[in-house]
Amino acid sequence: MSLTVWCNRRFRPEAEQQLRDGLAGHRLVVAPDATLADAVPIGRAALEDADVAFGQPPPDGILAHPRVRWVHVTSAGYTRYDTPPFLEALRARGTAFSTSSGVFADPCAQHVLAMILALSRQLHASYRDQLGDHSWHYDERRYESDLLTGQTVVMLGYGAIARRLAELLGPFRCRLFALRRQAKSVPGVRIIAEEDLTAILPLADHVVDLLPDNERTRGWMNARRFACLKPGARFYNVGRGATVDQRALLEALRSGRLGAAFLDVTETEPLPPDDPLWTAPRCLITPHTAGGRRDQDEAVVRHFLDNLRAWEAGQPLADRIV
Amino acid sequence: MSLTVWCNRRFRPEAEQQLRDGLAGHRLVVAPDATLADAVPIGRAALEDADVAFGQPPPDGILAHPRVRWVHVTSAGYTRYDTPPFLEALRARGTAFSTSSGVFADPCAQHVLAMILALSRQLHASYRDQLGDHSWHYDERRYESDLLTGQTVVMLGYGAIARRLAELLGPFRCRLFALRRQAKSVPGVRIIAEEDLTAILPLADHVVDLLPDNERTRGWMNARRFACLKPGARFYNVGRGATVDQRALLEALRSGRLGAAFLDVTETEPLPPDDPLWTAPRCLITPHTAGGRRDQDEAVVRHFLDNLRAWEAGQPLADRIV
Repeated sequence: MSLTVWCNRRFRPEAEQQLRDGLAGHRLVVAPDATLADAVPIGRAALEDADVAFGQPPPDGILAHPRVRWVHVTSAGYTRYDTPPFLEALRARGTAFSTSSGVFADPCAQHVLAMILALSRQLHASYRDQLGDHSWHYDERRYESDLLTGQTVVMLGYGAIARRLAELLGPFRCRLFALRRQAKSVPGVRIIAEEDLTAILPLADHVVDLLPDNERTRGWMNARRFACLKPGARFYNVGRGATVDQRALLEALRSGRLGAAFLDVTETEPLPPDDPLWTAPRCLITPHTAGGRRDQDEAVVRHFLDNLRAWEAGQPLADRIV
Repeated sequence: MSLTVWCNRRFRPEAEQQLRDGLAGHRLVVAPDATLADAVPIGRAALEDADVAFGQPPPDGILAHPRVRWVHVTSAGYTRYDTPPFLEALRARGTAFSTSSGVFADPCAQHVLAMILALSRQLHASYRDQLGDHSWHYDERRYESDLLTGQTVVMLGYGAIARRLAELLGPFRCRLFALRRQAKSVPGVRIIAEEDLTAILPLADHVVDLLPDNERTRGWMNARRFACLKPGARFYNVGRGATVDQRALLEALRSGRLGAAFLDVTETEPLPPDDPLWTAPRCLITPHTAGGRRDQDEAVVRHFLDNLRAWEAGQPLADRIV
């Protein structure tokens, strides 16, 4: 059966060709206002004819067009869609909703490990010397370098990124904890509930925020929770900026208690040039690049086409939310 | 039997106490000119009474005092001792020679992985923006970010660091090659000989120099070998600076052919502030810190004391060379 696939995300030329080839026999409608950036929620032209909406379709557009039977977003996060009314409405009318989580879990997990190891090995301090006076701080940097082996890592969240991060940390023989609402046990990772945190956070050498942004998680990492951490602990965020109380984070850095923070996401993005996080002590920032991969567009298109084949065959969708 | 243990390496106070406690019943003679730095080969006072020489004893001092029956150096590298006359002389008189390789393999391997991932995830580029104008290069950095998964890593050398690095790379499912004189096979790593390199180097995404400095390895990574690499390949050195022809490395960087270099060691150390490597394009430098660990002194002392127990009990020494 020929389907109409609506898309409001532009891809690089090779990936766009791959999409067109993969949709042979179906009809592709590209919203005229589509852009390369995932973040811009525009384009609803022709959504009324669509069977499948691919990209970053506007939630109200989906709600207004019940013909759409499957929504697949090009991101791993889905904050704009993650509201009870929207998800309930899809459920009620039998519309599937899936994400590109599988595309971004591996780069995000590698990004977290890169952040952890860069701090452990003092790479930024050495780079500052290289950009500056070319000084050679042999003893100082060596005695400030850490071994990750056997350290304790607490992951806030246990989705695809956390599972991959746990794999990558395997050879380091870290003690791993993960906060998760379902209490399912996992080999090598101790799953903890929110009421366990007061006991577990003080053990952490590294706390990795992987939380999505929703009503339950906003401002989750607050002053009280930063105060639970042991002095010198390090905090990473590749979840969503809104899950952190940034004033509390700044205070934890300025007081010297938090060992370091490495943030890939911030409450406002781009982070304004005059935001105090840019120059806070021991705070490092990457511009929401944790999910980045050279082949990102090809991988997103491939993931969608694989899911399309599954959907056509009545097989389970990967990364399905509804 | 009470032994006289000579030492020309100073340790931080806790580690020195640990050494004194561990040597109870033996006599410890600390050379008066001992320093914290491993690199300074000084101190031979009282070497004539020593049964065991621990630290960085001068090779000629060892040769002059045949009473010394075991030499244990506090470093993993042993360039100054790695000459046929010295090693032969020890063999002939039955003096054992061991290193602290086991202490430094894990931090060195973690440092290499930190370097690889930092380049893959564009951490230095983002840090430059943070130190500079606080600009937010979302698309650019994402499309320049790499996944290590499935890439090809060629290790020059297959000792303790390479074995640990292979473990750490396990979850990345990389294709691993290691240059090694012995053709012993190893699970998960394809061992190659020097004559295979012309075929293997062009496959590498990452080349990791782990070579010691000796007659066979000096200037080993030369213009011809850099020219074998595929465009964009990345080169890492945690072996010894002298194993690289630095003019050839500079040329490979300046021509744009080599994707990046990340060096922890250089021919002269400290690298002089006016050395062109500091400012060469896509060249990053750490000041010989790959082996660094916060607990370095305690770990070196513990490793020595463990070896001392083994030696007293007639058991095999760890990290024994002769």
